[in-house]
Amino acid sequence: MTTPTISNYLSEHRESHLNELKELLSIPSVSALPMHNQDTIRAAEWMAASLRKLGMENVTLYPTNGQPVVYGEWLKATDKPTVLIYGHYDVQPVDPLNLWDSAPFEPEIRDERIFARGASDDKGQTFMHIKALEAILESTGSLPFNFKFCIEGEEEIGSPNLPRFVSENKDLLAADVIVISDTSMMEEDKPTICYGLRGMCGFQLDVKGPKRDLHSGLYGGAIANPIHAVVELLQSFRNADGVITVEGFYDKVAVLSEEEKQAFKALDFNENAIKDEVGVSEFFGEKGYSFYERVWVRPTLEVNGVYGGFQGDGIKTVLPSEAHAKITCRLVPDQDPDEILELLQNHVAKNAPPGVEVSVSLFDKGAPFVTPFDHPAIQAASRAYEKVWEVPTAFTRGGGSLPIVSTLDEELQAPIVLMGFGLPSDNVHAPNENFKLKNFDKGLLTLCTYWDELSAVMNVK
Amino acid sequence: MTTPTISNYLSEHRESHLNELKELLSIPSVSALPMHNQDTIRAAEWMAASLRKLGMENVTLYPTNGQPVVYGEWLKATDKPTVLIYGHYDVQPVDPLNLWDSAPFEPEIRDERIFARGASDDKGQTFMHIKALEAILESTGSLPFNFKFCIEGEEEIGSPNLPRFVSENKDLLAADVIVISDTSMMEEDKPTICYGLRGMCGFQLDVKGPKRDLHSGLYGGAIANPIHAVVELLQSFRNADGVITVEGFYDKVAVLSEEEKQAFKALDFNENAIKDEVGVSEFFGEKGYSFYERVWVRPTLEVNGVYGGFQGDGIKTVLPSEAHAKITCRLVPDQDPDEILELLQNHVAKNAPPGVEVSVSLFDKGAPFVTPFDHPAIQAASRAYEKVWEVPTAFTRGGGSLPIVSTLDEELQAPIVLMGFGLPSDNVHAPNENFKLKNFDKGLLTLCTYWDELSAVMNVK
Repeated sequence: MTTPTISNYLSEHRESHLNELKELLSIPSVSALPMHNQDTIRAAEWMAASLRKLGMENVTLYPTNGQPVVYGEWLKATDKPTVLIYGHYDVQPVDPLNLWDSAPFEPEIRDERIFARGASDDKGQTFMHIKALEAILESTGSLPFNFKFCIEGEEEIGSPNLPRFVSENKDLLAADVIVISDTSMMEEDKPTICYGLRGMCGFQLDVKGPKRDLHSGLYGGAIANPIHAVVELLQSFRNADGVITVEGFYDKVAVLSEEEKQAFKALDFNENAIKDEVGVSEFFGEKGYSFYERVWVRPTLEVNGVYGGFQGDGIKTVLPSEAHAKITCRLVPDQDPDEILELLQNHVAKNAPPGVEVSVSLFDKGAPFVTPFDHPAIQAASRAYEKVWEVPTAFTRGGGSLPIVSTLDEELQAPIVLMGFGLPSDNVHAPNENFKLKNFDKGLLTLCTYWDELSAVMNVK
Repeated sequence: MTTPTISNYLSEHRESHLNELKELLSIPSVSALPMHNQDTIRAAEWMAASLRKLGMENVTLYPTNGQPVVYGEWLKATDKPTVLIYGHYDVQPVDPLNLWDSAPFEPEIRDERIFARGASDDKGQTFMHIKALEAILESTGSLPFNFKFCIEGEEEIGSPNLPRFVSENKDLLAADVIVISDTSMMEEDKPTICYGLRGMCGFQLDVKGPKRDLHSGLYGGAIANPIHAVVELLQSFRNADGVITVEGFYDKVAVLSEEEKQAFKALDFNENAIKDEVGVSEFFGEKGYSFYERVWVRPTLEVNGVYGGFQGDGIKTVLPSEAHAKITCRLVPDQDPDEILELLQNHVAKNAPPGVEVSVSLFDKGAPFVTPFDHPAIQAASRAYEKVWEVPTAFTRGGGSLPIVSTLDEELQAPIVLMGFGLPSDNVHAPNENFKLKNFDKGLLTLCTYWDELSAVMNVK
């Protein structure tokens, strides 16, 4: 547990902190909507002012082709390691507005939660980092590490400009540990560290056949049907058990360590709750792997969309001119997105059926990310959670991809610790987004405790 | 060739006949559009008046749940066989109007063609039957057969009410031969008899997975993806050579006779012209069969549509809640649509992948039709064409299905002769529909000759 001085400071300033947070949450910084451009910049300025007030130096709004990146640093911990804190000040759109019980940009506290767009994702959690450091600095006069903030304004639209900013400012952002609070705990009172995410590579398959739609009665049986060709290709990617049959696809997949397997087993896996939530009667996937192993540490090839020919009511006897599919693979360490894309392209070229033209267009790709399970920064975070919550920390990985995490991982080559304080009930990206005040309070204590725990094991640069 | 009296009659009345046809073509009897209901009835009344003028008796507009069926009969050929002539007085919609060079319902003769919606399909060709009988009756005072007309007003919307009308009026419509002029010759100066059509059965495949769309990163690999299930099922229907792998599918397929094979071979098959027309570099289909055999006498299973998940630009990492496919089979003698549907349903039930719910909805079905190649009514038609056109008649079958033909075949149990006078250049169902005046003139002579030729071989009931 952190020192009484620090926790007293947080208690005494709770009301003013919440008022400050309400101020931040009342700025409609919706990055997806051009009409909110000025609001989004206002949120950036608010963040910058808050960093200056904390005592950060060289606080700057770095321009990008989109919204600015807010940077600030405190580098007075001579010879100590440097921590980079990433967050974002933009928020999701609020539609459908009629489903909100209170206005999304008029923060309201009820049922021990603060309701507003961005309360959890990610204004609330970024704000906590500022206030945790403020508490330590005001209580002790110093910080145990050098700190840098990198707070962007385009996370909710896929961070289109951050990779370039990071790549062009590696020295500015250089750090020994990167901490991000933009995720959730598995459930209430179950502190969670997500130490790995799957990577991604996606592509579109386009099949062209005859130059125009044909009558399937007049030509069917003699002209290759692009839908059949798409089906044949899609089927060639996987066998009936869901195993991916693209040559070399699994070659570089890292084997899960025994400790990690045990950590996943320790998680309270409520099979029926998941089945109910998604509405299926059985799971389906690679044999010999648990649910969590399938979604966190095994790669996938999922068809996200397929379309061609007639889609209306009834029937239309058409042999269509073209057909399409959208495909994404989730990748795990040590798969390389570029290598996988090449394997996929080779597979398509080799398996393209006769009588049609097949082409592949590549979309975004991102490397998988993992901070070693036994890394001191991860284990210190686990101890901090346990000291505050007084229950064991759950170790998870994520099935999805956070492009910015791959970018920071690849460009800055520092371990990344995802310390999320959100809850599944926070309604992120949905109406009635909220953040539980208990998680706000305990989260602040956990962050303060974390810097303590981390400095005990990572004291020298 | 028919008698000079008859051909003189046709020459002398050519202008008045064309004027009458223009009158008929100027009625916008678009059955698909409710706004044209009154026009469609007007066309029915026009047909009825024309039959009365010809001397048909008991001319009646039989009401149906849709447009009326125009019936008329001339039964004065005691002890002679009866011929039923089927046609339709409704037409296709005219969109896109801006692509017409003259108004679709203001018939115009230019370049030796008459341009108007319905000129070829099927007002023009039905009108020819009336005028051919008029010529014979006016020139000779009698007709060589008993004749019945059945002219419907819903062919262009799939004849939804005709099957019931035919089934409830078998005695009224009973005939020894059925003649339909609603098809085309293969090309100019190539008279063609299509003596068989494929049947059809169609169904929709619906696959349901999770109750809502899922994030393919968070759930991919552990929850069955409905698109994968649809792909697996579709792929299970056919092998890579296009052979249908549904058990029992080919069991009742009749073998083509040597004469028919020779007749197909005799057709001028211009491989490159077809490839150019549809824009493919190679054909694709069952090995060991020619193009015409593949589209006319081999059954197919074609996917007419497939859809599920994301179809927009870029990528969306969704594991969709459902996916769908639309499928039609073309059937050939002696396949039975009900039996085939049962085989398909069994196949789907047997091959449905785990983790999803699969359902099958049936659509229309129609039996294949064939009038034996060597039937006297077919061979007489061939001789009639040859006498007028002075070239050999081509014998073809059709890959498509005409539901009304199956209905007449099944309900009335009489041989059907498809004597089409249209041309591929008639633009049926498209802007600038037209009918070549040469085909109008020679077609009239061919019909008159046909009744002669037919009465030579089918003289007694």
